[in-house]
Amino acid sequence: MRTTQTLDLNARTIIDAGIAEAERIGNPMNIAVVDAGGCLLAFARMDDAWRGSVDIAIGKAWTARAFDVETKALAKLAQPGADFYGIHASNDGKVMIFAGGVPIKEGETVIGAVGVSGGTGKQDQGVAEAAAQAFARG
Amino acid sequence: MRTTQTLDLNARTIIDAGIAEAERIGNPMNIAVVDAGGCLLAFARMDDAWRGSVDIAIGKAWTARAFDVETKALAKLAQPGADFYGIHASNDGKVMIFAGGVPIKEGETVIGAVGVSGGTGKQDQGVAEAAAQAFARG
Amino acid sequence: MRTTQTLDLNARTIIDAGIAEAERIGNPMNIAVVDAGGCLLAFARMDDAWRGSVDIAIGKAWTARAFDVETKALAKLAQPGADFYGIHASNDGKVMIFAGGVPIKEGETVIGAVGVSGGTGKQDQGVAEAAAQAFARG
Amino acid sequence: MRTTQTLDLNARTIIDAGIAEAERIGNPMNIAVVDAGGCLLAFARMDDAWRGSVDIAIGKAWTARAFDVETKALAKLAQPGADFYGIHASNDGKVMIFAGGVPIKEGETVIGAVGVSGGTGKQDQGVAEAAAQAFARG
Repeated sequence: MRTTQTLDLNARTIIDAGIAEAERIGNPMNIAVVDAGGCLLAFARMDDAWRGSVDIAIGKAWTARAFDVETKALAKLAQPGADFYGIHASNDGKVMIFAGGVPIKEGETVIGAVGVSGGTGKQDQGVAEAAAQAFARG
Repeated sequence: MRTTQTLDLNARTIIDAGIAEAERIGNPMNIAVVDAGGCLLAFARMDDAWRGSVDIAIGKAWTARAFDVETKALAKLAQPGADFYGIHASNDGKVMIFAGGVPIKEGETVIGAVGVSGGTGKQDQGVAEAAAQAFARG
Repeated sequence: MRTTQTLDLNARTIIDAGIAEAERIGNPMNIAVVDAGGCLLAFARMDDAWRGSVDIAIGKAWTARAFDVETKALAKLAQPGADFYGIHASNDGKVMIFAGGVPIKEGETVIGAVGVSGGTGKQDQGVAEAAAQAFARG
Repeated sequence: MRTTQTLDLNARTIIDAGIAEAERIGNPMNIAVVDAGGCLLAFARMDDAWRGSVDIAIGKAWTARAFDVETKALAKLAQPGADFYGIHASNDGKVMIFAGGVPIKEGETVIGAVGVSGGTGKQDQGVAEAAAQAFARG
């Protein structure tokens, strides 16, 4: 049976799956994995990936666990006029409200998350999903 | 006669009323109570409530006292184009501009506030109102 | 068998044990409980407890889990000339390096922590120990 | 000829050398590698390594490049009464002034740094040196 411990051991597998997908689409990425407490487990910046996206990738991973939701879904709720407009000002700026953060689940339980930043929202999301699925398969 | 002191004594009553309402609607919440100075008196995170909402619940309570207003009302004023657009950038990120923060009053005088976060805006608001009413009744 | 979940359920028991000890010694306290991820579970400020100690109590609880150590022990290591001098500047000011933060353990595993602030180092430590023991007994 | 590019490619090699040394001494570590701009390239937290040391490891790597010096040497200069006393308050808390941060050099040129946190000063320093040497040899 997998435990949080296993997420530690598999954090690199998750990152490698993200790197493989980023290489496939030809866009260098920053990729972060956090544990169930939102604490950083592993991080990789690919060659030529945006330096400003280090913080964003880590923030997306943190956010996906903090609210147990894909940051892509949170984006809609955080628009002007929506329920959570202004949420990006909370938590000392760690809340990222655009695509690229995906929870990692053990059945129905969220045990961590992955965050990806360096491309368009669609690219970030695709790489994050590929990374998260590597854990599901692992 | 009630004093601020009494709010201290009753902070748990307020939180318990919030917890009861949260259980009734079946959504775990973070609930915070601040005093007349905006300083945290009591806080509770229910099982499985969003970790990212700890800061938000405390921020909503602080905001409701800081401007003597329900954060729900502040939301309208803080939209793009409205009078207070940008207010969320002030006060080191403590200003929360969506529903869930409710002042606690002694007659017309604000003597504290409650902040709730963990669900939709409507859910947060309902739990915050239930909590604040417990004081009014208490 | 106890789980982290149980720590959630018992957070108030831990705080109540701290309040009882604080009343016994006649010094109002701020008491915070965090979970295994360092995330705030419950907090109480007693009547007339120092307002500046809200942040300190929460910081002590966070620190005791972040380094799996009593903050009292960390104090020695953080003095000028010692191994960890300067550690208080890390983690955005959350690291508290004086007595009053105590890990909560399940056997050998740290599953949370309690932080107390409002009196002397000795008083804070005594109340934190009483609080942590309530969980061990619970 | 090695370039910054090469540091990117070798960041994992550096981290792996650190992990190997940490396993050899039996103390789990947080290990961070930054590039010539001080920007995070790669990070790993080993199982059971202190959560509070994530920020410290990254800070040590940043500091070692920011001042082109081992943080161990900076420690002496940052004591009360010494030339750089107070430096830990600069740069938004990123300056770590205890052992465990080591510059990575290409001949005489600093092209990045490694930061390690999770044990005593001596342990952190030993793991950081082992990691940095992996690049020199690589």
